[in-house]
Formats: sequence, structure tokens, C-alpha cells
Amino acid sequence: MREDILSLGQGARRAAQRMGLADSETKNRVLLGMAEALRAEGRLIAEANGRDLARASEGGLSGAKLDRLRISDKVLNEMISGLGEVAALPDPVGEVTRMWLRPNGLRVGRMRIPLGVIGIIYESRPNVTVDAAALCIKAGNGVILRGGSEAFHSNMCLASILRRCLREGGLPEDVVQLVGTTDRAAVLDLLKLEEYIDVMIPRGGEELIRFVCEHAAMPVLKHYKGVCHIYVDEGADLDMAESVCLNAKVQRPGTCNAMETLLVHEAVAGAFLPRVAESFRKAGVELRGCPATRRLVPDCKEATEEDWAAEYLDYILAVRIVGSMEEAMEHIATHGSRHTEAIVTRDLRRAHRFIQEVQSSLVLVNASTRFNDGFQLGLGAEIGISTSRLHAFGPMGLEELTTTKFIALGDGQLRS
Amino acid sequence: MREDILSLGQGARRAAQRMGLADSETKNRVLLGMAEALRAEGRLIAEANGRDLARASEGGLSGAKLDRLRISDKVLNEMISGLGEVAALPDPVGEVTRMWLRPNGLRVGRMRIPLGVIGIIYESRPNVTVDAAALCIKAGNGVILRGGSEAFHSNMCLASILRRCLREGGLPEDVVQLVGTTDRAAVLDLLKLEEYIDVMIPRGGEELIRFVCEHAAMPVLKHYKGVCHIYVDEGADLDMAESVCLNAKVQRPGTCNAMETLLVHEAVAGAFLPRVAESFRKAGVELRGCPATRRLVPDCKEATEEDWAAEYLDYILAVRIVGSMEEAMEHIATHGSRHTEAIVTRDLRRAHRFIQEVQSSLVLVNASTRFNDGFQLGLGAEIGISTSRLHAFGPMGLEELTTTKFIALGDGQLRS
Repeated sequence: MREDILSLGQGARRAAQRMGLADSETKNRVLLGMAEALRAEGRLIAEANGRDLARASEGGLSGAKLDRLRISDKVLNEMISGLGEVAALPDPVGEVTRMWLRPNGLRVGRMRIPLGVIGIIYESRPNVTVDAAALCIKAGNGVILRGGSEAFHSNMCLASILRRCLREGGLPEDVVQLVGTTDRAAVLDLLKLEEYIDVMIPRGGEELIRFVCEHAAMPVLKHYKGVCHIYVDEGADLDMAESVCLNAKVQRPGTCNAMETLLVHEAVAGAFLPRVAESFRKAGVELRGCPATRRLVPDCKEATEEDWAAEYLDYILAVRIVGSMEEAMEHIATHGSRHTEAIVTRDLRRAHRFIQEVQSSLVLVNASTRFNDGFQLGLGAEIGISTSRLHAFGPMGLEELTTTKFIALGDGQLRS
Repeated sequence: MREDILSLGQGARRAAQRMGLADSETKNRVLLGMAEALRAEGRLIAEANGRDLARASEGGLSGAKLDRLRISDKVLNEMISGLGEVAALPDPVGEVTRMWLRPNGLRVGRMRIPLGVIGIIYESRPNVTVDAAALCIKAGNGVILRGGSEAFHSNMCLASILRRCLREGGLPEDVVQLVGTTDRAAVLDLLKLEEYIDVMIPRGGEELIRFVCEHAAMPVLKHYKGVCHIYVDEGADLDMAESVCLNAKVQRPGTCNAMETLLVHEAVAGAFLPRVAESFRKAGVELRGCPATRRLVPDCKEATEEDWAAEYLDYILAVRIVGSMEEAMEHIATHGSRHTEAIVTRDLRRAHRFIQEVQSSLVLVNASTRFNDGFQLGLGAEIGISTSRLHAFGPMGLEELTTTKFIALGDGQLRS
């Protein structure tokens, strides 16, 4: 175990203990102070980011990846306004979520408390450093961040500004710590710190997430991928179905909540598929269909078994015609990733059954899969989406960065 | 990977998918059917248990351990009445815990669903086979049980009765599966089945729990030990303090929620310690105190550093005099196990602070630590106590065997 990694863990645990007791006013003042400091230090941040960008473009990083690495004015302003938004959210800590009276007069309740220390391992976007730290602070946690090596200088610069603001605001600076090395062995050591890190949240590609899951000694909150479905039911409003499907596929195809497979009831396939195929064609989406689909949409490519499990994250869509909603749900259970599924229907009973029986982190009726997002669903924030069921299933906001303890108020109750 | 273990996992996953959709009436009917079957098969159970008892006593198992293994009439009746009680509990599955309206008209809610497949690894008490299976069934989960090898025949007999009842009630028998071998390598394979088992709950001694945590690929809900404290505050009602302390220590000293360390404010130590020491002496409790305690209680042994972290599970108590509540809380944070802590006080402000600042799974005011138990706190049932913070912190009842998914009801909402 590297000494510096162990000491990160110990520092985080100590800092988190004090952080858990900080009142809302202090936490919010520090968050707003961070927003101010980021605005004031724009030049310093641009300089650090410039070093990363220069090294990355020398190293041959491509346009899209360079873009993700760049802290443009827009990205900086989003970090700054994000801090203000998190400060404005209600503080989850200390809330008594329920309280009840026992026959012996004991009043028992559950009180929301911070999770403790959160580890976050992420890839190139340096804004995660600020966004994730803000949420962890608001929920009273300590956080250990490990960003991508290509964003090292940017992350170091941002983290040191955040730490200065913590210190100036009377909170321990070790509430936010960044792993100060790009050495990959350090990640392995970090993943062993189950005594000091309560949960690990990896954010990035499937490879990174699998690596974290395989080596982490502490629990991991993650999702591997989003193979999201829309099922267009018999008798559906086809105008609505078309707009929902287009939105779910093309509004931002590279996201985990974009639709990857369209399932259509055979009774509406003839009326629906040719027209939606035309719209998809105009939007530049390539269709890959089952044989029945290809009879209705002649220029549609043939879908293989792999297509049913594919997360394209691209202008490609798999299409299958099904004989019933049961067949659609069976397809989803077999090929889906338990991320996001939607039904477009006019039938109340089938809407009800679809919601009951599909076990994905978000199940929608007559709305786009793109709503699986903490902000869109009204959580006020998001630190990631979980497709594991334990602790959190779906988008994770402030509440998911807390847990509850039991409290009991008595006047001398004894157990008999 | 052993073929038989892999196929247990696959069977459990399939069965759990169907089980998650079972209605309350079916589940309750099956649970009551199990109660009837256990009553009818008393002789068969006694026979199987007899084989285990004979082998155990040949193997030299001691009195207390033999007792834990024995399915007496009392134990059988408790299993039977336990099934009835679980059937009578409200079904957590399907509850919409909250629902809210988004500005775009989307109605978003959270719906309670089963966790999936629960693994339970436990030591000698065969009643866990029935108790744990009942809770998992009621919450719509599948369960894979692995009991101690000394209870093998008892567990096999009980599990086969439960499986017959599932089948007769129209539910998949693989909802309940018992690992049909005492081979220890099978446990290691079980712990690798993260694709088929959503969470592992070990129940037993610290060694078993550490083994499971070290090797499990899936998340583990557990507690290592309970080093529980009572802090008797300045100005406390000393009669109440004495009865609470006695109850917490001697009502059942072998349990994880029994008090192990008593902390007393120096202002009441002179009035309190000699009298409570006398009561403890009568109850057969050995005291091990700090130097200040030993000046007040002359026959008290000297406590060493190890005593502050000890989970005696016995008629032994560590005692320390502290200068303030802060010092008591500091002692708890340093030496405690985050299980159960209580304060005995008359002071509202200090009660409030103790509840806010002590981060244990149950924090009590003026009541015995022995209340940290799912039944006592009103959860209606208990499958264990968690001192890890993720997902569950404290006693775990039916609700902790579920998770929530998001649901959203729209009329064509698109993301812009």
C-alpha cells in the first residue's frame, strides 16, 4: 500500500467526521465561496487546462476527446452556476424521515445522515471534479477524487481552489482530496481502502467501470450501460409515438438514456414503421430490423443477435416487431440492461402492467427515455445513475449520498 | 466454478423474476401453508435434527452449541408462529413511496420492488432457514441459503418442506434453494455469483463475516460486532440510569446489542458508580475500570486498552469516568463499532446533541441498548443488523429487502 494513498483515506475519514456535523449555512457559504473563487481564478484554471490540452494534442487525442477535456468559458460558467444550484438545494442531512410510537412509549425514528467518504474515479471531463465535490459536500460527506491522467493539471488546479475555500470557510480542507499522481497502481491501492472509503462511484466507459468493480473492496455504485427500449403498443397514438421515439433516439444519441431498440406491436407496425423510418432517415439514423421490419421498411439492414444487446451511443437503432406486450417485456428482460424502458400506449391496463412488471431503474409511460436524469426527474442534482439495485437504483441525487440511522427517545424503557 | 453452484444461481434468478410479480395474497397463502406443513411434518424434522445432533455430540460439540442446533418444540413453534407473523405484515412490494409533478406535466414517483436474489450464509441455528426464507419470500425475492455443516440434515429437511409448499402454491420452488453440500469450496463459488446474487447477508461470528466480506464479489450487508456504550450524563436520574444499565448488560449478555462499556460523567460518578457496581456484583458482572473508577469501586479490576474495544458477549463490563459528554462521544467514536449507543440524561440540549452527533446505527435517549432489534423497533421482522452504511444501517426488516425504481407517467413529454 502506498503511504500517500493510505494517508488520503485517513485524512478523508477524519474530515468526514467533522463534515457530517457542519450546519447547512456553513456548507452553503462554502459552496458559494467556491463559485466566487472559480470566477476569480479563471486565468489560473485556463493555464492549467492549457497544459493538459497541449499535452493531449501532442499525444494525438482526437477532436471530441479534446473537447471533453477543454474548460471553455461555457464549461466554467456551468461549474459556477452548478455550485449555486447545489447551495440552493435543501440539505438532506438531519431530516427525520419518519417517526413512530412503540407500545412501550419509545419514540422511534429514522434520521438522515451522510454516507461518510465517497470515492469517485472518472475519466476526462474536469468539471466532474467540481460538480461531484459540491454534491458530496452538501450531503456532508468527504470525497476522494481520482480523475483521468489527461486532465491532471486541470483537476489539481480546481481541487486546490476548492480546498482553499473549505479552509477559509472553517471546514477541513481534506473534505475534498484529489489523488496527486497519475500512477495507475495508486488506483488499485485506492480500491483497497474499504476502511476509509464507504462507497466508490466510477464514472466513465464500461472498461473503467468493470475495472473498478473487479478490484474494489468497498461497495460500488455504477451502471455498465444503457440498452434502453421503447415499446409502441397496439392502438398507440402514432403521432405521439413518433415524436417520443425521435426524441429518445436523436436528441442526444451518445447518452446512456438514449433509445437503442424500438419494439413495435404488429397491429400498428404497418401504419407506424414506414413513417417513423422516413423520419429516422431524415435524422440520419440507420435502422437494423428483424425480418418482419425489413418487409415493411425495404432499405432497413438486417439485425443480428448482437444488435439486440448493443449500446450504440450513435445514430443506429435496432427495430423489432412483436406479437404482444408480453413478448416486448420478454425481449426487454432478456436483452435489456435494466436502465430505462418506455411504453407508448392509450390502454390503461397495459400501462399499469408495464410499470409493474418491467424492472428497470426508470419505467416510463408516454414519455421519452431521455428523462432518466437526476435534474429531469426533479432530484435537483445527479452524481450518476445506478443500475445495481442495492442502495440506489436510477439517478442518484443528494439523498442517495446519505443513509439513515435509527433514533429512539425513551423515559427509561427496558427490554423484557 | 462448480456446476451445481452455478445452476443454483441461474435457478434463483429465474425464480426471482417470477416471484417479484407474485401478489400479496399468493405469497401470504404460501407462507401460511408453510406454517401448516412444518406443524404436520414435526416428526420428519425431529428425525433429521436428531441425525445432526447425534453427529455433533459424537464430534464433541459443547452444551451451548448443541442447544443452538436443537429444534426443540419451542423452536419449531417459534418458526411456525414466525411464518404467520410475516404473512400478517404489510407487503412492501409495489408501494409508491412518493410521487411528484414536474413542470412539464410528467408525474414522477418511486415504486418499491424486490431486491432480487438474496444469499444468506449462516452458522448453526437451523431456524434461520425458515425465518430468513419467509422474509425473502414476503419481499418478493429469491433466496440461496447456506447453513452450517453441523445443521445440514435439519436444513435440508426444512428447505425441502418450504420448496414443496412453494410448488403447491403455484410459485417456483427455486425461490428457496439450499446449498446441498457441506464442501467449503462451494461457499467460495457462491461468493463469486455476483451476476445471480444481488446481495449477501452473512450471519454468525466475526470470522465467518470477515471471510464472506473478503471473498464476496457482490455487496455484503453485515455487522462485525457490537461494542455498545451507555453514557450516564451529569444530572441524570440515577434510578433510571441504574435500571437501564442493568438491563443493557444482563438481560441477555451474549447479544450484539448488550452494553460493553459504561461511560459516566465525573459529576455523578461518586453517587452512581458504587451503587451500580453493587447491583452488577449481585448480577455476577465483572467490572474493569479506569483508574478513577477503581478509586470509587475498590474491587474493580484495571481496564487495559483492549477492554475499550472489547465485545465481551459475557458478564464483563468496561467502565470509564469522563469529564464531559464531548469526551464520552470522543471515546465512542474512537473505540465503538457504530452499532448502538445510549445516553441517560435529563438535559434536553445534550440529548439533542448526542442524537445528532453520534453516528451509530441506533442512538437512544433514556432507554436500553437492547432495543436495537427489528421487532423491538417496530419493523415487524428482522433479517440482521447492518453497521455498514450503504443501503441499510441498523436492523433490516422487509423494507431493507427491497429497493425502489423510478416510474414516470406522461402524455408525450419530450426532452428539450
